Amino acid sequence: ILRQFQSYGHVADAVSYVNTLKPREAMELADRLDAASLAQLLENTDLRCSVLLAAKVVASGRADVLESIAEDRLSDLLGRLMEEEREQALRLLSPASRSSVARLMLYPEGTAGSIMTTEFVQLPQDWTVAQALEHIRQTQHDHETVYAIYVADEHGSLRFVLSLRQLVCADPAQPLTALWNGSRPISVGPQADREEVARLIRRHNFLALPVVDEQAQVIGIVTVDDVIDALMEEAQEDIGRFGGGEHIGVPYLEAGFGTMIRKRGGWLAILFLGEMLTASAMQYYEMQLEKAVVLAMFIPLIMSSGGNSGSQATSLLIRGLALGEVRLRDWWRVIVRELPTSLVLGAGLGAIGFARIFIWQHAGFYDYGEHYLLIGATVWLSLVGIVCFGSSIGSMLPFVLQRVGLDPASASAPLVATLVDVLGLVIYFSVAALVLSGTLL
Amino acid sequence: ILRQFQSYGHVADAVSYVNTLKPREAMELADRLDAASLAQLLENTDLRCSVLLAAKVVASGRADVLESIAEDRLSDLLGRLMEEEREQALRLLSPASRSSVARLMLYPEGTAGSIMTTEFVQLPQDWTVAQALEHIRQTQHDHETVYAIYVADEHGSLRFVLSLRQLVCADPAQPLTALWNGSRPISVGPQADREEVARLIRRHNFLALPVVDEQAQVIGIVTVDDVIDALMEEAQEDIGRFGGGEHIGVPYLEAGFGTMIRKRGGWLAILFLGEMLTASAMQYYEMQLEKAVVLAMFIPLIMSSGGNSGSQATSLLIRGLALGEVRLRDWWRVIVRELPTSLVLGAGLGAIGFARIFIWQHAGFYDYGEHYLLIGATVWLSLVGIVCFGSSIGSMLPFVLQRVGLDPASASAPLVATLVDVLGLVIYFSVAALVLSGTLL
Ligand SMILES: [Mg+2]
Ligand SMILES: [Mg+2]
Ligand SMILES: [Mg+2]
Ligand SMILES: [Mg+2]
Ligand SMILES: [Mg+2]
Ligand SMILES: [Mg+2]
Ligand SMILES: [Mg+2]
Ligand SMILES: [Mg+2]
Ligand SMILES: [Mg+2]
Ligand SMILES: [Mg+2]
Ligand SMILES: [Mg+2]
Ligand SMILES: [Mg+2]
Ligand SMILES: [Mg+2]
Repeated sequence: ILRQFQSYGHVADAVSYVNTLKPREAMELADRLDAASLAQLLENTDLRCSVLLAAKVVASGRADVLESIAEDRLSDLLGRLMEEEREQALRLLSPASRSSVARLMLYPEGTAGSIMTTEFVQLPQDWTVAQALEHIRQTQHDHETVYAIYVADEHGSLRFVLSLRQLVCADPAQPLTALWNGSRPISVGPQADREEVARLIRRHNFLALPVVDEQAQVIGIVTVDDVIDALMEEAQEDIGRFGGGEHIGVPYLEAGFGTMIRKRGGWLAILFLGEMLTASAMQYYEMQLEKAVVLAMFIPLIMSSGGNSGSQATSLLIRGLALGEVRLRDWWRVIVRELPTSLVLGAGLGAIGFARIFIWQHAGFYDYGEHYLLIGATVWLSLVGIVCFGSSIGSMLPFVLQRVGLDPASASAPLVATLVDVLGLVIYFSVAALVLSGTLL
Repeated sequence: ILRQFQSYGHVADAVSYVNTLKPREAMELADRLDAASLAQLLENTDLRCSVLLAAKVVASGRADVLESIAEDRLSDLLGRLMEEEREQALRLLSPASRSSVARLMLYPEGTAGSIMTTEFVQLPQDWTVAQALEHIRQTQHDHETVYAIYVADEHGSLRFVLSLRQLVCADPAQPLTALWNGSRPISVGPQADREEVARLIRRHNFLALPVVDEQAQVIGIVTVDDVIDALMEEAQEDIGRFGGGEHIGVPYLEAGFGTMIRKRGGWLAILFLGEMLTASAMQYYEMQLEKAVVLAMFIPLIMSSGGNSGSQATSLLIRGLALGEVRLRDWWRVIVRELPTSLVLGAGLGAIGFARIFIWQHAGFYDYGEHYLLIGATVWLSLVGIVCFGSSIGSMLPFVLQRVGLDPASASAPLVATLVDVLGLVIYFSVAALVLSGTLL
């Protein structure tokens, strides 16, 4: 196993290999690895048995391994250990590492503080380029990235940011201040949402973003690789919410039964209460239904078309708002586009529905009665109305959410369907009353 | 305007300012900017009037501006100009830039080739560290990133990759080969999907990934900032698909009427055809409906619950599969979790439904007849069955899609609802036949 492990040139490949091992084999392997290799393994977020291995490292008192793991990752790992293991681990660390790891663990999940690392390059502003490069050479093993260099004033507050590229290309005798182009540094507080961090890194094409406290002192940096991981998780969170329901927040197979029921049941119950309005609407149209049971046949078909066109419009506009292609004030331009589009779409679906009734009647598959053409017309007209309303409501929902300060992505397909369903029934029975009065009704 | 523009220390802020200007004002501003500033502006993907400004730059023959724009961005911009403008632009470029930009434009959207840049650092393997650093200092302005350094053998094939960090920290007299740790370089072909590029960059925490041709010669690199943009777009694409419907592929407000109808109508029509099975199912149960119209009242309520629980399960498992928390072979573990969960969820929703019937009956809001308790029981039992089936189908759909080689994220909420709806009707009427036979039926 050790030989096989050592044959991988890239950590990620070694991690994939370890992921195929049984827990017992992975533990044995860990015992035989040197501190640097084991730390590299544990630093990788794709490693599946990381908590198990971390507990083992702590149990065998391997302080050197813990010290070699990047502090942002170490705080995440310790956060998943049991109380006593965590305390034992903190005791193993050097006082400096202990205090910074302990502080990192305090920041709530999803904040800049929770994904930052405290291992970065900070230099005093009166140094020269040569001094800076020499310092980086001496200390490079302590830093996660050396490409962003933070220059502080005499109070330790962040003054400006340089890149290693600038240092390498500059005259070594120059003072650091000579490289500064005068722009104020961009930073966030430790409580900022990680999505805000991602937005800033994306906006400025940064490799790292400094996190500062109230005195503008840099307390950590968030590196681009961690932002990519955060973006992936956020994207999946959005899909989860769009699917209807709160975000579970833990890996699917690790979620407890109670969590599962609570997180999923809440939303399902709210949607169910909303959908109960459909039963009230149906009760209201009871007389019509009794006279023409044939009307009931098309209820599921017609209602689902409203929900489908609505959730399609919603997802298009969540996307537009998220990518900045559509802004809040464009809402009327959206309505002006949705109306003709949905008229055509509704007419198209209606034509299919009408054709179905016509063909079934003439082929003898089913007998809709002598007024089958009027029933077909009812279905056709209702579909036009319902697709129009579905698209309008679906396209406006993300705007409304953004307007009241919520994330447009918290609109979900089931929510749209629920909003549209009751209205769909009202439209259908109203059209039926209009078209069929005097004949069936 | 020019003074205001120059007051911004960060390009991104200047871009935000230009985005607030009217097109005419932006054009005037562009006329008065030096080549470097205008190129920086055009290089930013957040600039809204970029096509307009690019056309203007071409029209005024400002070759220096075009040369200063990163080639990956320039090829995207030229791709959006009109035929004649594009040709004029290519004529303005130096022969070297012209041929590489023309080649970049050939790669289809969404491939590694379409997001790579041809401006990177490549060095022969017999150089020393000092030579390499000197070369980087001389040529830094031609490169998008100097942090990843590609070392080629005598045939020009990629041999290994170094980081600027390694060069800076090494002894200047060492040959480059002495810094190589022996691992083979990781690269992709130009036709690789950009999602594969993102996966590799994320897996290895790279700042850039080399794109190589058949001879293993580096033809470009994809930088991490472009991968972040690509990831954002992919995530929004997935939400769009989950909402039901093909991805529109162009900004919402720029999509033509025909595109809109075609892209949205196709999926809506397919779903509609699927939903037509509900009409057939209803026709099949016509006799039951005629005898007990009261059964129709709960059809929308019951069907929507199946769809909601199904799309919730689907989104949970799309997420699990995408993040690697769940693997294909875990499907039976998922079923084993979904069944008890959905039993409880279904029983809960059923209890609400039963309570509603009980309360409405006793409060006198509606008269369900003497058998209202049996009707309540029918609703309750049906909900248990439908939520179980909905969750099972919804949770298995992503596995089935992945198994047949499709993206699990191509499952959509409306697709799940459509799959579940017909089954929901069958369950409902079967339960009704069981519970109500001898009384209402
Ligand atoms: Mg450390
Ligand atoms: Mg953390
Ligand atoms: Mg960017
Ligand atoms: Mg990190
Ligand atoms: Mg989000
Ligand atoms: Mg968030
Ligand atoms: Mg150039
Ligand atoms: Mg391109
Ligand atoms: Mg990573
Ligand atoms: Mg680029
Ligand atoms: Mg995708
Ligand atoms: Mg794709
Ligand atoms: Mg539905």
